[in-house]
Amino acid sequence: MKVKLFFIALLPSLIFSEPIQPLPQNVNVDNNKAKLGKELFFDPILSVDNSVSCAMCHDLQNGGDDGLVASVGHKGQVGDINAPTVLNAVYNFRQFWNGRSKDLKEQAKGPIENPIEMGNTFENLISVLKNSTYKEKFDEVFEDGITEDNIADAIAEYEKTLITPNSAFDRYLNGDKKAITKDQKEGYEIFKEKGCIACHHGINVGGNLYNKFGVMEDAKSKREGLYEVTKEEQDRYYFKVPSLRNVDKTAPYLHDGRYDNLNDVVKFMARYQLGRTISEDEVHKVVQFLNSLSGELPKDIR
Amino acid sequence: MKVKLFFIALLPSLIFSEPIQPLPQNVNVDNNKAKLGKELFFDPILSVDNSVSCAMCHDLQNGGDDGLVASVGHKGQVGDINAPTVLNAVYNFRQFWNGRSKDLKEQAKGPIENPIEMGNTFENLISVLKNSTYKEKFDEVFEDGITEDNIADAIAEYEKTLITPNSAFDRYLNGDKKAITKDQKEGYEIFKEKGCIACHHGINVGGNLYNKFGVMEDAKSKREGLYEVTKEEQDRYYFKVPSLRNVDKTAPYLHDGRYDNLNDVVKFMARYQLGRTISEDEVHKVVQFLNSLSGELPKDIR
Repeated sequence: MKVKLFFIALLPSLIFSEPIQPLPQNVNVDNNKAKLGKELFFDPILSVDNSVSCAMCHDLQNGGDDGLVASVGHKGQVGDINAPTVLNAVYNFRQFWNGRSKDLKEQAKGPIENPIEMGNTFENLISVLKNSTYKEKFDEVFEDGITEDNIADAIAEYEKTLITPNSAFDRYLNGDKKAITKDQKEGYEIFKEKGCIACHHGINVGGNLYNKFGVMEDAKSKREGLYEVTKEEQDRYYFKVPSLRNVDKTAPYLHDGRYDNLNDVVKFMARYQLGRTISEDEVHKVVQFLNSLSGELPKDIR
Repeated sequence: MKVKLFFIALLPSLIFSEPIQPLPQNVNVDNNKAKLGKELFFDPILSVDNSVSCAMCHDLQNGGDDGLVASVGHKGQVGDINAPTVLNAVYNFRQFWNGRSKDLKEQAKGPIENPIEMGNTFENLISVLKNSTYKEKFDEVFEDGITEDNIADAIAEYEKTLITPNSAFDRYLNGDKKAITKDQKEGYEIFKEKGCIACHHGINVGGNLYNKFGVMEDAKSKREGLYEVTKEEQDRYYFKVPSLRNVDKTAPYLHDGRYDNLNDVVKFMARYQLGRTISEDEVHKVVQFLNSLSGELPKDIR
């Protein structure tokens, strides 16, 4: 009896002492907005020449990104940064690698007007949408119909639904101790022990803070991270730490897509971010752990 | 000859691969502004009842802070956060524990109007200064004389000069391999090996990023860090990682001043931030390393 009480008393601290938290089963959204946003997300009408949709660079069936080193926009133009996944992006503390948008709604506006992505202007887009079947749909959902803010709002509302619960690791966190393998458990311990957890923690196993790309050595980055936003010297090379959820599906890796496999990324991180040696066996186990972070896609994504 | 060339070729990478950079010997400032700022920094005229100066909570002879758990403002009012040091603050990426000010100038305005610090208003302060000998001094330095911005500008300009170069560790980084002891060298290796370096790096050994206070376990913080600024749930308990320069002079520690000695802080950090065990011997050596981070005060601070 005494022993039982002791464990019951201990339980909350055991649960809350994990530095990674499981994703919820679903998020509350405005369904009407999300439905409209979903249609927009898959519609190339957003781009100036009707060639590029959000879904093209954020392929939900393939990790929520495009599998390319850098994305291809309208007229085949190639960007200079690896497309981050849209999956679970609602849980990132900022959006974009350099964190220039504070939330999904602000983010959604970016690619539409980016000259090498959708190459559009909101003035043009609003005029195009007003002459389409979207006119009525917006009027049903928004009092003020088609506006820049409402377009972004609808897309963001849909994106909030793109979470991937029930990964093996989340099931493990939720009490199913057999949900992950022995190697994955060991990999998680190594992940914590090596210090990866210092930055990759919380509900998104990352996405909570900026840190320097190349703490221990110059990591030869062409992009300058937060410096691009603030122009403050001390922000140079500080990038948003990316979420590791579904990371086995989001190759190539790092903001410049320099690696096509997780083994190389884990070795790079150990050396450049932590200055630590890591054995092949440890790398293998950490990658096994990372594989356990892939969850279930929403059933009705399309 | 071959060996020599090899080492010369290697030298830059050896230097640049250190995750901590030495402080410069001095910084370029506008001397007239800094001189005026210095006078203001030490003058209680800034506070509503002529009782509190910047220097009272930022005692330059004692680590650039006040040695208290929380500072005492006018009428003996006690704040709810540990005063950060002003020394080397110019190298922090943001100011205040929750990062609410982007630079020293913006920071300098805060305490003047904080009701439990100097309790003043700029309207009142400007009127008081205009009826003092400061009138002429401001007119000499600033075209538009005494304004809110100019007051903060002068103080910030002085604060930029408050750097502490030539610490034993900086001399070590600059090539004097005997500048630190064997224990300190080992402590630095442990500091890197345990993962402290992931957040405490760069010119200020910290001050470059926000991270969660209590990554591995709930650290029971009353203050909520960046959340206080953004009101975004994901920013709760994310605080600016403090600089560790002169840390042996800035007790008590952490934003709530909960520890009065570095041994306890190192143990706390290992457990709550990194989830790692650390032996007494390792703690001792890390603290020895931290002691090597104290530098020289500017000669003419007063």
